[in-house]
Amino acid sequence: MDSLKIILSFTLLVSLSSATSVVDFCVADFRFPVTPAGYSCKNPANLTVDDFVFSSLSVPGNMSNIFNLGVVPAFDVTFPALNGLGLSMVRLDLGVGGVVPIHSHRASELILVIEGTIIAGFIGSDNTPYYKTLNKGDIMIFPASLLHFQVNNGNSPALAFVSLNSASPGFQTTTFALASNDLPTDVIQKITLLDTTQVRKLKTVFGGTN
Amino acid sequence: MDSLKIILSFTLLVSLSSATSVVDFCVADFRFPVTPAGYSCKNPANLTVDDFVFSSLSVPGNMSNIFNLGVVPAFDVTFPALNGLGLSMVRLDLGVGGVVPIHSHRASELILVIEGTIIAGFIGSDNTPYYKTLNKGDIMIFPASLLHFQVNNGNSPALAFVSLNSASPGFQTTTFALASNDLPTDVIQKITLLDTTQVRKLKTVFGGTN
Amino acid sequence: MDSLKIILSFTLLVSLSSATSVVDFCVADFRFPVTPAGYSCKNPANLTVDDFVFSSLSVPGNMSNIFNLGVVPAFDVTFPALNGLGLSMVRLDLGVGGVVPIHSHRASELILVIEGTIIAGFIGSDNTPYYKTLNKGDIMIFPASLLHFQVNNGNSPALAFVSLNSASPGFQTTTFALASNDLPTDVIQKITLLDTTQVRKLKTVFGGTN
Amino acid sequence: MDSLKIILSFTLLVSLSSATSVVDFCVADFRFPVTPAGYSCKNPANLTVDDFVFSSLSVPGNMSNIFNLGVVPAFDVTFPALNGLGLSMVRLDLGVGGVVPIHSHRASELILVIEGTIIAGFIGSDNTPYYKTLNKGDIMIFPASLLHFQVNNGNSPALAFVSLNSASPGFQTTTFALASNDLPTDVIQKITLLDTTQVRKLKTVFGGTN
Amino acid sequence: MDSLKIILSFTLLVSLSSATSVVDFCVADFRFPVTPAGYSCKNPANLTVDDFVFSSLSVPGNMSNIFNLGVVPAFDVTFPALNGLGLSMVRLDLGVGGVVPIHSHRASELILVIEGTIIAGFIGSDNTPYYKTLNKGDIMIFPASLLHFQVNNGNSPALAFVSLNSASPGFQTTTFALASNDLPTDVIQKITLLDTTQVRKLKTVFGGTN
Amino acid sequence: MDSLKIILSFTLLVSLSSATSVVDFCVADFRFPVTPAGYSCKNPANLTVDDFVFSSLSVPGNMSNIFNLGVVPAFDVTFPALNGLGLSMVRLDLGVGGVVPIHSHRASELILVIEGTIIAGFIGSDNTPYYKTLNKGDIMIFPASLLHFQVNNGNSPALAFVSLNSASPGFQTTTFALASNDLPTDVIQKITLLDTTQVRKLKTVFGGTN
Repeated sequence: MDSLKIILSFTLLVSLSSATSVVDFCVADFRFPVTPAGYSCKNPANLTVDDFVFSSLSVPGNMSNIFNLGVVPAFDVTFPALNGLGLSMVRLDLGVGGVVPIHSHRASELILVIEGTIIAGFIGSDNTPYYKTLNKGDIMIFPASLLHFQVNNGNSPALAFVSLNSASPGFQTTTFALASNDLPTDVIQKITLLDTTQVRKLKTVFGGTN
Repeated sequence: MDSLKIILSFTLLVSLSSATSVVDFCVADFRFPVTPAGYSCKNPANLTVDDFVFSSLSVPGNMSNIFNLGVVPAFDVTFPALNGLGLSMVRLDLGVGGVVPIHSHRASELILVIEGTIIAGFIGSDNTPYYKTLNKGDIMIFPASLLHFQVNNGNSPALAFVSLNSASPGFQTTTFALASNDLPTDVIQKITLLDTTQVRKLKTVFGGTN
Repeated sequence: MDSLKIILSFTLLVSLSSATSVVDFCVADFRFPVTPAGYSCKNPANLTVDDFVFSSLSVPGNMSNIFNLGVVPAFDVTFPALNGLGLSMVRLDLGVGGVVPIHSHRASELILVIEGTIIAGFIGSDNTPYYKTLNKGDIMIFPASLLHFQVNNGNSPALAFVSLNSASPGFQTTTFALASNDLPTDVIQKITLLDTTQVRKLKTVFGGTN
Repeated sequence: MDSLKIILSFTLLVSLSSATSVVDFCVADFRFPVTPAGYSCKNPANLTVDDFVFSSLSVPGNMSNIFNLGVVPAFDVTFPALNGLGLSMVRLDLGVGGVVPIHSHRASELILVIEGTIIAGFIGSDNTPYYKTLNKGDIMIFPASLLHFQVNNGNSPALAFVSLNSASPGFQTTTFALASNDLPTDVIQKITLLDTTQVRKLKTVFGGTN
Repeated sequence: MDSLKIILSFTLLVSLSSATSVVDFCVADFRFPVTPAGYSCKNPANLTVDDFVFSSLSVPGNMSNIFNLGVVPAFDVTFPALNGLGLSMVRLDLGVGGVVPIHSHRASELILVIEGTIIAGFIGSDNTPYYKTLNKGDIMIFPASLLHFQVNNGNSPALAFVSLNSASPGFQTTTFALASNDLPTDVIQKITLLDTTQVRKLKTVFGGTN
Repeated sequence: MDSLKIILSFTLLVSLSSATSVVDFCVADFRFPVTPAGYSCKNPANLTVDDFVFSSLSVPGNMSNIFNLGVVPAFDVTFPALNGLGLSMVRLDLGVGGVVPIHSHRASELILVIEGTIIAGFIGSDNTPYYKTLNKGDIMIFPASLLHFQVNNGNSPALAFVSLNSASPGFQTTTFALASNDLPTDVIQKITLLDTTQVRKLKTVFGGTN
């Protein structure tokens, strides 16, 4: 073979390839404001494999909270290589009786149980609940936007990982959304039909006012 | 001009155009099962302008309910021409004190107030509430998936129309989702931190069990 | 309950939530250039509910024009909260005989008639016209990209609102596109088959040259 | 190597691969109605390479028409392998003075001139025209939904191919849309500001009524 | 409260909700052909929570193959609830020295290492390789369409789960694609620059001909 | 007609139109970093028709390489008007025996043969090859992400143009991806089952190390 020709070919095709390499991936550059499609991309020339690996899911999150729940998210803001690639992951550690409170997000979610048993469920928009005890190795799908939850109903700690098809899924936890802010109690009463005393109690617990 | 040539041209270009006319629009044919992208399309040859016009929003929905709310939806299942076109609309009539209870859906929503005054709001995923009294002619945007609500806080009936960027937006009303089914009370207590007595009360009201 | 734990839980989950709050919504920041997906987002910390409410649709647009038409658009450039959320709205006031001239745009459109009667129609890509007189409360869907129009054919002023499933729908009004610029008359004649005298007349009226 | 193991591996991975092969491609099966996302897919087991090759663009279309234009489309309905893959192509033969009349479609288009010279142009939604004479080997982009046209302004026949990023782009030719159907002349006059006599003349030419 | 009104309200809002429930999720009904957007949906009335849970990932796949690799896919064809929801998962068991051969697919992939150590990598379209040894709890992102691989480089078996943002990701394993079919050896030689003897050897191993 | 009214109307509607003109097209401005949706847009006020026309495909690329192949890409980085519009094109000149080596990209591709004969093919994810000799005027579709290739198997030079439904398709050429970098030979051997000597030979040829 003619190695000179090969070198030329190499140059030619590398040039063809690198023309589009900027969008093979788009590690978030937080120096620019986010757009509806995600963050601007870092220059690929400055990246190494370490930009694409994230190790914080190897240890549980802080579980010193009322839900006995540890949460470690790998979202675009914590793991910038996810930006633009449509995937994220969260590590969930649930102590005995631990709870992931009812919440929703714009992405679909797939839970994988690694340890323990977890009662998991979601509620359809026709209000039908779908819930079941999951064991080690089970996976369950939670459709986008629907309310869902997980509870460790076993006798030992549980560990699960959830995958979501967005780098920025947008969690909204229902009770926090209602009770940890200054939305007036009488408005909350009207829009939820909760008793006023219940609303006030939740507000006290979650730091809400009004 | 040569009218024979024109006729040929006409045939030629009509043929070119009709090649794609099936997807200009796709009026839902409910004889086939829905797909992730919507329903199958009716044969355009059988359609008339009446397939593209919907008159049920001209009268209020039944308001004999606890929320003093009339709802008339124009979704793909009621107005099949919306199928595949990414838009829907709902008429909302709120009596004095009437309420659209807190809910979410996968589509974004734009409310337009036609009569009366309405306090409307949504809650961000960081739990920040954004709420305000809207007057006649005001519009407000509710981002997709976020909890939101409307309350007639005026002295006269209110009328509003909401537009959504999906033909099938997927409403989920929070209190109904929790209390109108057989999701066990102890699970609801854990995942909401509502008191058990409150949960039972809501279940009684909304017809839930367990 | 242990309120310290609650506070920790609060911190934990707020942190989880705020990780993604930037893309719950994306109020346009016009200091940066637009991208194919829309404008960059303003910092959510600086937003209030007023960013999400738009009041300019409460009054008619200027109707002193040949079409006897008032237009008030709520697009991303006038109502920046729409950026990235896939919805917009336009207020249309048509005097007696008023006209929305034939036009198209890349978004689908849903018209809602609030007052008066309007003959509205669109033309399929197989050249089939679908048109009908709409009354108060009627809605009609105009599929994306197809030519459509509205005419007040009643004896009183008409008011309508159109919703579109894009924050930036891209209106192109056919006669303006042809006659209000310097596209040469002979080219226009060839590509439309309009008579040269007609083209010149339209150019005079609409300020075109060549 | 252990060939038994290899066979097993082969079976294993083929099985893994074939799990998704149905959506690698989706050759349209016209026995089922179209959906908003395209036609149902033929069983891949019955396909050969001939399903993926289309030869009708090798000869000009019939040019015996007033536009001196031959059109051969490769859309999903003529070349079913395009279904679901987001691309189509059209062969354009323009005799001397030949014209592709002004039209629009929901897909973007890239024209490639193979023979002759063509004046090609599009009009922005702010009514700015962009037009230029293209020579052999030139390409020009026409953004989705905008009105555009091509005219052979040379002394010899022209040949061009256009690519579009949809298998079903949805052509709408402006003059045909207005004049080849029963849309009433007075309505056309109002929505275009064309003179009534001009509208009637076009209707006569293009076979329209009313 | 007026329980009759509540019942009416319940009926009203359930009706509103169920209008869209068909697309909250879309469990695949394999009696109909697939479309570009996925399979038709089963009637939600016939579904239970078991449709949304998948247990086959709890045990390793058959590892009696040359790659010392066990693969258990949860794709739409094996776990029909994934249809239309944009997520899938695969369990990977790699014996000591086990290999996931180089492959690509149209979805992005996130790997999570549960046991052992794995050298994982992908190659950018500019030919830059990004590879690293991953330990328990590490995650790594593989951008859509790029070639990537995993090798157990530790002294004990490795277990990993990969998540993909498609229910039908479309795996293509490079060596199988080249050598397990009847693509002629001389063609393969030309398009890969592999030696003919190497191609023939691979074909013998993988059951290819020609 | 009242020309003053016309002028007002003109102003009115131009204002309506220009509200969205920024996203009719988005000529890339390389002074800002790319985002997942493409580059920022240049100010339309500074554009002319020359921004939308690209002439570099009129001459062959350099063919002094081992593949006897000339490649001229029209991607967003070389033809900035393609940014955000979802289309690109590449000119391919293949000398006698010339080869486009096996490669893949995230976009679908449509090849058009202008001169000569080309054997073209792709391989499905179930490893089925689809290949055939194409003649002048033939087109063939290559589904997104699947490996494909072209070889001039005729007695004269061949010329083809390929269209892709992305402005930045992301070419990855298999042999270059494996052999033109520092991916260790033993890793390559394991993930491809190529012989070590073959890998080393390729690395020597393509400039790889390790």
